[in-house]
Amino acid sequence: MKKLTVGVVGAGRIGKLHVENMVHLPYINVKTISDPMIQQVQDWGKDLGIPNLVTDPEEMMNDGDIDAVFICSPTDTHVEMIEKAAMAGKHIFCEKPISFSDEETLRAYKIVQEQGVKVQIGFNRRFDKNYAKVKQYTENKQIGDLHILKITSRDPEPPSLDYVKHSGGIFMDMSIHDFDMARFVSGQEVTEVFVLGAALVNPQITTVGDIDTALISLKFADGSVGLIDNSREAVYGYDQRIEAFGTKGAVESKNETATSVKLSTAEAVIEDQPLHFFLERYNDAYIREIKEFFNAILEGTETSCTFKDGIMAQRIAQAAKESSGTGQVVAVKVLQ
Amino acid sequence: MKKLTVGVVGAGRIGKLHVENMVHLPYINVKTISDPMIQQVQDWGKDLGIPNLVTDPEEMMNDGDIDAVFICSPTDTHVEMIEKAAMAGKHIFCEKPISFSDEETLRAYKIVQEQGVKVQIGFNRRFDKNYAKVKQYTENKQIGDLHILKITSRDPEPPSLDYVKHSGGIFMDMSIHDFDMARFVSGQEVTEVFVLGAALVNPQITTVGDIDTALISLKFADGSVGLIDNSREAVYGYDQRIEAFGTKGAVESKNETATSVKLSTAEAVIEDQPLHFFLERYNDAYIREIKEFFNAILEGTETSCTFKDGIMAQRIAQAAKESSGTGQVVAVKVLQ
Amino acid sequence: MKKLTVGVVGAGRIGKLHVENMVHLPYINVKTISDPMIQQVQDWGKDLGIPNLVTDPEEMMNDGDIDAVFICSPTDTHVEMIEKAAMAGKHIFCEKPISFSDEETLRAYKIVQEQGVKVQIGFNRRFDKNYAKVKQYTENKQIGDLHILKITSRDPEPPSLDYVKHSGGIFMDMSIHDFDMARFVSGQEVTEVFVLGAALVNPQITTVGDIDTALISLKFADGSVGLIDNSREAVYGYDQRIEAFGTKGAVESKNETATSVKLSTAEAVIEDQPLHFFLERYNDAYIREIKEFFNAILEGTETSCTFKDGIMAQRIAQAAKESSGTGQVVAVKVLQ
Amino acid sequence: MKKLTVGVVGAGRIGKLHVENMVHLPYINVKTISDPMIQQVQDWGKDLGIPNLVTDPEEMMNDGDIDAVFICSPTDTHVEMIEKAAMAGKHIFCEKPISFSDEETLRAYKIVQEQGVKVQIGFNRRFDKNYAKVKQYTENKQIGDLHILKITSRDPEPPSLDYVKHSGGIFMDMSIHDFDMARFVSGQEVTEVFVLGAALVNPQITTVGDIDTALISLKFADGSVGLIDNSREAVYGYDQRIEAFGTKGAVESKNETATSVKLSTAEAVIEDQPLHFFLERYNDAYIREIKEFFNAILEGTETSCTFKDGIMAQRIAQAAKESSGTGQVVAVKVLQ
Repeated sequence: MKKLTVGVVGAGRIGKLHVENMVHLPYINVKTISDPMIQQVQDWGKDLGIPNLVTDPEEMMNDGDIDAVFICSPTDTHVEMIEKAAMAGKHIFCEKPISFSDEETLRAYKIVQEQGVKVQIGFNRRFDKNYAKVKQYTENKQIGDLHILKITSRDPEPPSLDYVKHSGGIFMDMSIHDFDMARFVSGQEVTEVFVLGAALVNPQITTVGDIDTALISLKFADGSVGLIDNSREAVYGYDQRIEAFGTKGAVESKNETATSVKLSTAEAVIEDQPLHFFLERYNDAYIREIKEFFNAILEGTETSCTFKDGIMAQRIAQAAKESSGTGQVVAVKVLQ
Repeated sequence: MKKLTVGVVGAGRIGKLHVENMVHLPYINVKTISDPMIQQVQDWGKDLGIPNLVTDPEEMMNDGDIDAVFICSPTDTHVEMIEKAAMAGKHIFCEKPISFSDEETLRAYKIVQEQGVKVQIGFNRRFDKNYAKVKQYTENKQIGDLHILKITSRDPEPPSLDYVKHSGGIFMDMSIHDFDMARFVSGQEVTEVFVLGAALVNPQITTVGDIDTALISLKFADGSVGLIDNSREAVYGYDQRIEAFGTKGAVESKNETATSVKLSTAEAVIEDQPLHFFLERYNDAYIREIKEFFNAILEGTETSCTFKDGIMAQRIAQAAKESSGTGQVVAVKVLQ
Repeated sequence: MKKLTVGVVGAGRIGKLHVENMVHLPYINVKTISDPMIQQVQDWGKDLGIPNLVTDPEEMMNDGDIDAVFICSPTDTHVEMIEKAAMAGKHIFCEKPISFSDEETLRAYKIVQEQGVKVQIGFNRRFDKNYAKVKQYTENKQIGDLHILKITSRDPEPPSLDYVKHSGGIFMDMSIHDFDMARFVSGQEVTEVFVLGAALVNPQITTVGDIDTALISLKFADGSVGLIDNSREAVYGYDQRIEAFGTKGAVESKNETATSVKLSTAEAVIEDQPLHFFLERYNDAYIREIKEFFNAILEGTETSCTFKDGIMAQRIAQAAKESSGTGQVVAVKVLQ
Repeated sequence: MKKLTVGVVGAGRIGKLHVENMVHLPYINVKTISDPMIQQVQDWGKDLGIPNLVTDPEEMMNDGDIDAVFICSPTDTHVEMIEKAAMAGKHIFCEKPISFSDEETLRAYKIVQEQGVKVQIGFNRRFDKNYAKVKQYTENKQIGDLHILKITSRDPEPPSLDYVKHSGGIFMDMSIHDFDMARFVSGQEVTEVFVLGAALVNPQITTVGDIDTALISLKFADGSVGLIDNSREAVYGYDQRIEAFGTKGAVESKNETATSVKLSTAEAVIEDQPLHFFLERYNDAYIREIKEFFNAILEGTETSCTFKDGIMAQRIAQAAKESSGTGQVVAVKVLQ
């Protein structure tokens, strides 16, 4: 069996998650992890048997053994890391969003294309079995031509104001997954966006220039339409649903629960709440996404979620932010 | 038991429906039905034992026996009928919309207020047990403060283009129920509307100046938001769902089905589709709405769905139509 | 429209229910109601416009106007009433069970056959839309050949010990509905019964020679099998489910609820409990059963639930009682 | 971290399953696998990095490194293997049933007790999250006192007649899981069994002295009752449900499906079928059961499914077989 050697930039929550999933894959060797605060994760890394735990990502870029780099560092470092990895001929798995700037993202895209390395963007939900089935039914026209796509996406609890300051705000850190899902399921580009937003969960969010509740209307290239509703706080759990409606019917994906158990008493009939958050809900999807990335490298095929997918989700997020500010419909420029 | 005598203007589909429900109420006497084409329903009316089947509504307006008038004639006659009935001191049940003109509607409203007669507008869905429960949970704050209200409302099949020409279009004949529902469940006025519409079911609809697919974003007076999605054709049945989401949770009402039967075979697990259309789904609601109207008269209480409710739903419909045309957010003027 | 004139023997709970349903049928005239305690229901009967409220059923038997008699008096009077009504040439609707004695029941059956009057036994559940659909799927072989039939039937609260003394016990007053359902859905005769019973809800029930919890195994004539579980007390509501399993699949009918509303909070996801008891759950079935009875008279067709159906359910109940006592499998003699 | 070294007797389907789950546990070292046909699994074993692939289990019994032995060989070898492993002081994980003979099983039990080794029997369903929750609700009295326990357990396809010849028949190879589940959830011993069985899936099964459809009534020590329905062929998938009903309510566990996706079309509303068979449905449970076994060894605690649990399930299976043959209720002798 051919093996791949991997380096990981950034050992925060998502970087550690990927590493923990990779160490279970017999054909993957995680050789190096870099993080400015690497000493904080020394024990964790050693327990997992990672040889090199370093502060500077430069080391893995210069390491000829390394086939692929996972970029899990803060968003404002992504472009620099992509460029370095691409120049070193390494395949790239990059977390979303690629950057906060369309110009920088395009610059990185040019280098990646020139170097011919494979890139996969971390839109994990594409690899969830429920969404994949909704996509398949839609693509196969089992619902005929798509007319309306509806996405409900609500987090169980809001992030800190401090997090939001650096995340790019609700559209960049949260809705961006829904923008990708809209493109993924519809198989269409989004051409227009309108947002009706509010600061209802915590009005303090406006002090960092953000909102926490958003209704997002989308127009697709073929004239069909989409609707996303986001909230930073659904107290009953991570609410992740999708519905595609068309000329021949509708397909919907309901929330996942921990068990299928129902309790009936004199007071009430009670079922499980949705799984708490992304770690529980998308556990399998995170594993599937890296397997597909490695498979694309090993088989020489296209990745399942490309650089272009990352660019377009980012552009929709930027348009949404603009619409939220101006109260106007904003056009999205489609990358040719 | 005190009895009430009723006259009905208009013997089309909805007029006949109300009459058929009324003849089962022992305390109601339907004395007169008027319709320009009354000869077409002579047999039906006689079988039900209705004494007066006439062409001219004037007769019932001048009949001292008649306590209440049901206005089920075409929308463009409503205001005239309301004014005549009010001037004659009769209580009024009027189908929606009241009229296509805010000025005319307000003129009728003034007369109704001056005459002090009771008025109920025919928003039957308020009387559906599912919506009533969603309203109750929301009002009782079991979901805390409302943040997002979502309404799915899709007809099983489109009306004829000819019907649409006289109906006032999708917002006046179809979405108007959802606008009322938004106000009813939220307990809030709608202050802004934005529509993303399309002609996807039948592009010919544009020849009569209408659309058949609409995503409608609403802003409520307290800053919370609402989302309606409409389609003229859901091939699987009448899709009527609502969801209210707030600080302490969410409450949703699913579609009703004919039976609770599930079939599992080697090919699939199959359940019933939603009930076909409004006659099946809102059968009980139509009965409940007239009972509550009569009860308001007999008990001297306010009706459950007032003239003001009719005015506001109509104004939202007008704003939606404008937004659909301009692509802009449109403000709704709230009646004081 | 041809009209039918009806007399009703017995004005207890079920007699009154039938009368209240009949007065809404325009082609039925309820002329006479008899009950030894008729004075207790005088007001009720007058409000409904019933002309003759009498103590002695003899009057309606001799009344040439009366086409059909409803026998809703205590079980120990059924046979006498059936015989009188049949001898007077009246069609008969008789509540279950027909009697506690196979000999008496057969004697009444003979007279009914000789007189050629129509008889329908009050197994209302046959007319429930859910059970009817399960029956239809089974009959149409959409589940292939039936192998296992499972019935869950649990009351929300136990009757008084005093009631049980005269009801014939759990098999005669409660399980008898399930025995009829087993025959109805399977289209098969039951040939063997085994009961595992217990007095768990209220051990005092043994003082009147009864039990309150029963698992009943049935063998059908073609070798397939059935399972009934009964309890006198399901605190969450009237639990009425059925499942038919065969070579090509399974079909099941779930409980009915008042609404389709679901509440999700930080504590739990809550849905409605099953409808409380038979008046709520089988409301429509009671109306449908009398309509079908009248239809059989008017159209000259066979009733949907015949005298033979009554005899066989009664025989299974007797076999179940015997099995519960002896702990042995008991054979059921099939009426030819 | 303390590590454990393991030997596995038998490399059939279940033996391989356990090995594949164990190689993912960092604290387990699978050193030896024995099987008379070991050459057939050489490649598989080498790929997984197992050092010793042998024909004779004797080798692992004499290997001082080995802490625990998994007995996954045919049932008729279990007792010999248990005795050898116990005499060698090794902890034992043994697949069900322990043996076909109560005497032999008791003989092995005596040796195990004398040697003081830990034993876990392979009733994997105890470790399924759904059943575990039903057990917890029942144990915690959230349904009050248990009155009725219902288990539906149907395989998607029948085994070969040849398999059945050596498996001990339906009660020993299939229902035995349900017997264990009945004891596990109820927390009670089963004292009486009655079976109504039939050969409906494939009448040829009678040529090997077995049946393929069974309704099993159970009486528990405290007087409550249980019902199991088994079929060898549910064409829609592996049907695995349970329901516990008591004085304060009921708790039920529904089937698991691959996705939560629902498709609505003009023809039907379609959901996923139950997961196909035990490998899909109990995948997680198989992993959890070995983790708990190793945990019991490492922590010095009792195993979650003891030798006594194995003996009692086996005795109920024997009683069921007898009842199926005689048509009589059969008492189960409880091990003190």
